[in-house]
Amino acid sequence: MSKSVTGPEIERLIQLLAKLPGLGPRSARRAALHLIKKKENLLIPLSAAMAQAVEKVRVCETCGNVDTTSPCTLCTDPRRDNSTIVVIEDVADLWALERAAVINATYHVLGGVLSPLDGIGPEDLAIASLVDRIDNATIPVKEVIIAVNATVEGQTTAHYITDQLEGLEVKITRLAHGVPVGGELDYLDEGTLAAAIKSRSGF
Amino acid sequence: MSKSVTGPEIERLIQLLAKLPGLGPRSARRAALHLIKKKENLLIPLSAAMAQAVEKVRVCETCGNVDTTSPCTLCTDPRRDNSTIVVIEDVADLWALERAAVINATYHVLGGVLSPLDGIGPEDLAIASLVDRIDNATIPVKEVIIAVNATVEGQTTAHYITDQLEGLEVKITRLAHGVPVGGELDYLDEGTLAAAIKSRSGF
Repeated sequence: MSKSVTGPEIERLIQLLAKLPGLGPRSARRAALHLIKKKENLLIPLSAAMAQAVEKVRVCETCGNVDTTSPCTLCTDPRRDNSTIVVIEDVADLWALERAAVINATYHVLGGVLSPLDGIGPEDLAIASLVDRIDNATIPVKEVIIAVNATVEGQTTAHYITDQLEGLEVKITRLAHGVPVGGELDYLDEGTLAAAIKSRSGF
Repeated sequence: MSKSVTGPEIERLIQLLAKLPGLGPRSARRAALHLIKKKENLLIPLSAAMAQAVEKVRVCETCGNVDTTSPCTLCTDPRRDNSTIVVIEDVADLWALERAAVINATYHVLGGVLSPLDGIGPEDLAIASLVDRIDNATIPVKEVIIAVNATVEGQTTAHYITDQLEGLEVKITRLAHGVPVGGELDYLDEGTLAAAIKSRSGF
């Protein structure tokens, strides 16, 4: 049924675009056609941007962020507070925190969470490198904020990391649970409501 | 608020990905990160596929299809019936008809529909080239199937093309209206139901 309508070059472009998250086979075709139609304004610039990314983007050896330098811009920024490390699952979480611009700390990307069912153990995550990093820090690390997702795997991972950091003189904290800003109580689960009541504060 | 989290190369990749249909700013970030993480299996092949497309893909001078040759594979295929031309709005429609594999004709891509409000007149569409093509065909064109979308603009365009082809010895047909295969009557509009009743056929 997958009769090739176009040349192999266009078919290959469609197949690869379909592997992007958010694009399926049909929307990949639309995207490919859009690219071909907007050759000057989109296909050529995007092709160049990808070639640049292939050549320049690397993973930061310190924190696991992706950037064009290693150590990355955040790790080498002198205005950053190196005494606080925010531990996150994924680079996307780092980006989310940076967009929110809520903390001027450095980061440590785990690269996932513990998940025995998927065969992901501690050795698959950047946990040993976190311990090393705190051990060998030139500026002593005072606080580690474990900002993993509020899932079962995330919380298991948080506990595992807490155990690994035992004995190091560092304060370990985690994100607050509660009602999301703008959230409606009616739509929240019981666990969130219970946490919000428990951690209530005075006006 | 759009503080740059990553280097300019990654920001530029995200901005360009966000211009693809089906991807917004947020999903473009996810796509960029996915590309960077799957550098060997996705970013490098996709970058190469785009470079290939930039270099090789062109618009067919006869029918307006996109391909790596001009005239395109369909126009030069000796097994194609050159005496029938299917007129469509967009290359995507050509691909849809070819996937359905319902007709062995050649095509003519208009590149849009008449839309005075958007400033799209007959000179912006491949209508004159359709008339020329029929006029100068080595194999006489017997039938033109106007397969534009069943929208107001589409139907206006169909009428305009019919007028332009007047005087040429060619049969002009259009797609049938009716109930889509697998469609439920309850969800169809009155116009479609009226057309389906009017064009009803015996078992």
